[in-house]
Amino acid sequence: MKAESERRVEGASLKPLGAAAAPEPELLCIFGTGDLGRSLGLRLLQSGYRVVYGSRRPHSSGPLPEGAEVMSHESAAKLASVIFVCVHREHYEFLETLTPHLEGKVLVDLSNNLKKKMYPEANAVYLQRLVPGAAVVKGLNTLSAWALQNELLAGKQVYLCGDSAEAKQVVSETATQLGLTVLDRGSLSAARELEDFPLQLFPEWRLPLSVAIGLIAFFFFYLVIRDVIYEWIVKKSDISYRIMVSLGNKVFAIVSLIMLSLCYLPGIIAAFLQLYRGTKYRRFPHWLDRWMLCRKQIGLVALGIASLHAVYTFIIPLRYSEKRQLISSVVMNNITTPVGLDKILAWRTESFYALGILGFFLFVLLGLTSLPSVGGTLSWREFSFIQSKMGHLSLLICTAHGYFYGWDKFLRTSTYKWYTPPAYMLCLIVPSVVLVLKALLLLPCVDRTLTRIRQGWERTQPGEKTVIDKATNL
Amino acid sequence: MKAESERRVEGASLKPLGAAAAPEPELLCIFGTGDLGRSLGLRLLQSGYRVVYGSRRPHSSGPLPEGAEVMSHESAAKLASVIFVCVHREHYEFLETLTPHLEGKVLVDLSNNLKKKMYPEANAVYLQRLVPGAAVVKGLNTLSAWALQNELLAGKQVYLCGDSAEAKQVVSETATQLGLTVLDRGSLSAARELEDFPLQLFPEWRLPLSVAIGLIAFFFFYLVIRDVIYEWIVKKSDISYRIMVSLGNKVFAIVSLIMLSLCYLPGIIAAFLQLYRGTKYRRFPHWLDRWMLCRKQIGLVALGIASLHAVYTFIIPLRYSEKRQLISSVVMNNITTPVGLDKILAWRTESFYALGILGFFLFVLLGLTSLPSVGGTLSWREFSFIQSKMGHLSLLICTAHGYFYGWDKFLRTSTYKWYTPPAYMLCLIVPSVVLVLKALLLLPCVDRTLTRIRQGWERTQPGEKTVIDKATNL
Amino acid sequence: MKAESERRVEGASLKPLGAAAAPEPELLCIFGTGDLGRSLGLRLLQSGYRVVYGSRRPHSSGPLPEGAEVMSHESAAKLASVIFVCVHREHYEFLETLTPHLEGKVLVDLSNNLKKKMYPEANAVYLQRLVPGAAVVKGLNTLSAWALQNELLAGKQVYLCGDSAEAKQVVSETATQLGLTVLDRGSLSAARELEDFPLQLFPEWRLPLSVAIGLIAFFFFYLVIRDVIYEWIVKKSDISYRIMVSLGNKVFAIVSLIMLSLCYLPGIIAAFLQLYRGTKYRRFPHWLDRWMLCRKQIGLVALGIASLHAVYTFIIPLRYSEKRQLISSVVMNNITTPVGLDKILAWRTESFYALGILGFFLFVLLGLTSLPSVGGTLSWREFSFIQSKMGHLSLLICTAHGYFYGWDKFLRTSTYKWYTPPAYMLCLIVPSVVLVLKALLLLPCVDRTLTRIRQGWERTQPGEKTVIDKATNL
Repeated sequence: MKAESERRVEGASLKPLGAAAAPEPELLCIFGTGDLGRSLGLRLLQSGYRVVYGSRRPHSSGPLPEGAEVMSHESAAKLASVIFVCVHREHYEFLETLTPHLEGKVLVDLSNNLKKKMYPEANAVYLQRLVPGAAVVKGLNTLSAWALQNELLAGKQVYLCGDSAEAKQVVSETATQLGLTVLDRGSLSAARELEDFPLQLFPEWRLPLSVAIGLIAFFFFYLVIRDVIYEWIVKKSDISYRIMVSLGNKVFAIVSLIMLSLCYLPGIIAAFLQLYRGTKYRRFPHWLDRWMLCRKQIGLVALGIASLHAVYTFIIPLRYSEKRQLISSVVMNNITTPVGLDKILAWRTESFYALGILGFFLFVLLGLTSLPSVGGTLSWREFSFIQSKMGHLSLLICTAHGYFYGWDKFLRTSTYKWYTPPAYMLCLIVPSVVLVLKALLLLPCVDRTLTRIRQGWERTQPGEKTVIDKATNL
Repeated sequence: MKAESERRVEGASLKPLGAAAAPEPELLCIFGTGDLGRSLGLRLLQSGYRVVYGSRRPHSSGPLPEGAEVMSHESAAKLASVIFVCVHREHYEFLETLTPHLEGKVLVDLSNNLKKKMYPEANAVYLQRLVPGAAVVKGLNTLSAWALQNELLAGKQVYLCGDSAEAKQVVSETATQLGLTVLDRGSLSAARELEDFPLQLFPEWRLPLSVAIGLIAFFFFYLVIRDVIYEWIVKKSDISYRIMVSLGNKVFAIVSLIMLSLCYLPGIIAAFLQLYRGTKYRRFPHWLDRWMLCRKQIGLVALGIASLHAVYTFIIPLRYSEKRQLISSVVMNNITTPVGLDKILAWRTESFYALGILGFFLFVLLGLTSLPSVGGTLSWREFSFIQSKMGHLSLLICTAHGYFYGWDKFLRTSTYKWYTPPAYMLCLIVPSVVLVLKALLLLPCVDRTLTRIRQGWERTQPGEKTVIDKATNL
Repeated sequence: MKAESERRVEGASLKPLGAAAAPEPELLCIFGTGDLGRSLGLRLLQSGYRVVYGSRRPHSSGPLPEGAEVMSHESAAKLASVIFVCVHREHYEFLETLTPHLEGKVLVDLSNNLKKKMYPEANAVYLQRLVPGAAVVKGLNTLSAWALQNELLAGKQVYLCGDSAEAKQVVSETATQLGLTVLDRGSLSAARELEDFPLQLFPEWRLPLSVAIGLIAFFFFYLVIRDVIYEWIVKKSDISYRIMVSLGNKVFAIVSLIMLSLCYLPGIIAAFLQLYRGTKYRRFPHWLDRWMLCRKQIGLVALGIASLHAVYTFIIPLRYSEKRQLISSVVMNNITTPVGLDKILAWRTESFYALGILGFFLFVLLGLTSLPSVGGTLSWREFSFIQSKMGHLSLLICTAHGYFYGWDKFLRTSTYKWYTPPAYMLCLIVPSVVLVLKALLLLPCVDRTLTRIRQGWERTQPGEKTVIDKATNL
């Protein structure tokens, strides 16, 4: 490297920082002086490239990064072999007139659309059709001017596609210089897929959120009927004001417990499927795969709802209706002598609260380790310890919290208003099933078989050789 | 790469990990065996360099990283072409005596000062003056020995400046090897700026914190006068103990709501300015630019204060004074018959609490997505969905929370003690204005014009050509 | 770079993304088509390598990444110079039969074991013994198939060891291409250490968690004896139900305060040790070093326990026993006339709560800045400002919270049940000592001396020269 640096002294150089071993930094061209063009140019300059802008009005193109030149599209295109097209698709036509100057150049299409399927063909395909002599590469379009300005690029993944491997290679090297991680998505036919990326809105959160909203709606109406309408019809008493806080609190408690158990159910189903099949080499059904992939999101939605339940609980004694009830309980019962404390009731309620707090605490720890920057510091064994052991412990404690809430109410007939079970009973079904099945899986004999299957062993195998081969692989 | 590795087999090599393509790892020199020198040496060794230390007492220089050699300054300087100067500025004089040995070498100045403007010239400029024959590069000084030891370098940005492009190139390559991202800040005249970086103390938090403290102080005194002093003078009742919790709670609620709305006000001002000007190509006034840049910090300060409000609220029923009041309300009113529940009051208070909880919940989600590691995983559309849509929804709900608190109090004369409006009325002004203006911006006709302007369209344009040109750029 | 890309056009190339300057991407071989083998192959393909799998059953090896070829072990080994062995150690024997084909190849051992010390020798050492002609490199074994699939590699650190520097170099370059940061751990004798890494379970959390559990156990039993058993024996009253919430709450408050102070105690001990010794160049005793290194974990455990204390406090007024007590306090005392409010008691309790909230708030801020992604954005001065200044302020406020709790109880004889001090007194000892010592260190004369020592100055030094030399180093 010493030799290199000495050799380089002779060449004229302009801010050559970071350029791998080039005697002079490479010149890149950017068409378009909008937000994205300016931000991209600034980052390219900072990474050691020289930048020239192509503009229709080179003399009045607004503030551009220091060190960049501006000239007409023609002149700029002639100088560089790579051109970043930071122009709206609606205005690509002008590129057709530049065709002779773009022959053999690499055109990087960074454009996005406002909606999916706005145009019959992908922007990059359209660009390639306009300028057939150039090698169009679609990519980097997931970068926003905002991210470029705020230097939020380090390690970020970007996608490229294009029909020319050489062109992709060149663009990929430049992107790597900017600190990006590049993934090749194949030929230009993938351009539409890449253009749809920035339009995605939480694709992996859709299913968990739909499930949560469905469950909330169901339990809300169930509770409105059983609590408010029943009271109104049978006891002629209007307690509709309870909808805002009491009912909300019950619904959130119920839904978060069910969703926490839904987070662990697919893993258990998968384990039983592997045990039944006697192999891990057959694919899971599609629905199970999809379920497994959104477990993290299900868990985080459950955590959000559990937090709402916690805060709703904290404010209970603040409420006017609650205070009124406390006062009434003194006056109505005409209590004038000291009342003894029901010891069992005290133990039960205190345990109920303590279990709720501990379960929620473990649940928050689970959520914290799912933060990318925290999870990244954990070893695989630590991550699996927290997500599996602590997760099931949290589910166990939260389910116990539910059972302490119910206690012996299920024995009383008055619990079953209009012959329906109370909501908390419904919500305990799935968690209880998950916990019983998990306990079965922890039985030594089952656990041993499952571990062997997961290490590659297969049960009813016709040929001996296959068994050995599969069992060998990590 | 295969060929390379075979070729390399012949050369003698000492831990050549990571060195790009050098047959033998490069030798770097470090002057100074303090904490920084030792940590830097260790990291350089781990990145595949050979390291030699220059020391005045080569035989008693304390524990150094394994694999590094120690020798006199002279001998060390002769061996390497790059020398990291890990010595306090106060002791640079000894380098003057080494001038002949430093001719043509790259000297990296990593020093920092304890205060800004401690010395008339930057440390690196002083170093260059002492050793005119060497190429001084200022940089890497934002790295602490602590960060180097704890391997917290990946992707971290460091700055370089210096008068020799070649020298900067060499240092930049080494820094890249350490996993750092390098930004060139130009010539050695930028050295003072670089030396001031590590002395910055939350520069971007200053304005938001000042605003928060100012608002807290104003509303605190306003409330002390209206609540405590008024009560004292008019009703001769000492409720000064309420300062600690009740007043604090009110102040935090008020300030967090105002600051949340201040977070969205500049965006709305900017939109109206663009609508009025009919173009997005004229710069915003300086104060608006500065305001826009610290929106994230304003939001986070507001979130912190809102959290305080939440916790202050949770402990209300715990307080001795609150319990006493509850007991008094039974005894004083001589309540002996069951009291009916005011249904409207119940609905209102429960809605008040439910809105507060939901608003706070959305606010916390906003805060979570501003964590660098969470925000980095979002697409641009997801980020803008959360920050804009969910942010305004959160503001709407929190403002409604404020209106439910006031309800019909503004109609009663008793509310206006000493002819002043209560604090919660004052705090609703800015959020209400923001929400009304935002609603105006969402009107289809306004929204359409604004979208066109943001895509580059300009209203009253003399020349047609310009319009097309600007509208083309991404 | 332009020249390079033009030259490359002629060569045949297959997805050469990211490969530094190779005319044709390098071919790598993977033995084993299990989860790890498949995930690794996919990532290698994405990083621009060509991949060939070696399998016993090349025609039925299940789904493999697109673009990879499968063949017999022999054929695959012949094609590539680097072979990743993704096979369980139990099945390494088959490699012995391939010895002639593995001569001179680089074998990367990625295997892990289920337990520490499962086998007499490390897997990689065993592999080297089986195939003496190959250069075995142990490494990358901390990567899980899960991390590889989910692209969680950027900047992650992996370890390598092996007896051949060239082989390590080759593997290191490939790992760097995958976005990993490589650390060389020396010869193959370090293989066992590397194989133990993924089996570590929170090594740096052991000590803090043990201390926390020990303190919780001690104070729990102390409180059970003083509160519950004393009440039972002396007053014949069963208040055992208080164990669940009241006692838990007290224990968590006590332990979190003690642990917060334990977080700052070692820094203060170190400062006094440096003052006493008059130098910073002598190593701290081993126990102090170890203590210093787990301060962050001690602080986070304290924060977790403090959060539990907060939530336990929030639900106090919800509890059946608490409501009953409130009702009893009306009825038992036969209160029928309005009761005056004890102003001093009101001030004291409100201050007690306000201090608790503020201390907890600062504590949470400390915790947030210890998140890797947040801490990484802070300058050194900002980080030290928060961790030192704000940390000690938080300790001061929390300790004051404790003193307000006690107030003048220590003067009453009834406090000392069975001649033991109450638990809150015990818990105030360490924090008070820490705060007094810290105040001493902040005295101008002490502070000045300490700053000089930390800049390298030494007190009673026989030789003048040494002083100068040490003081020069950063």
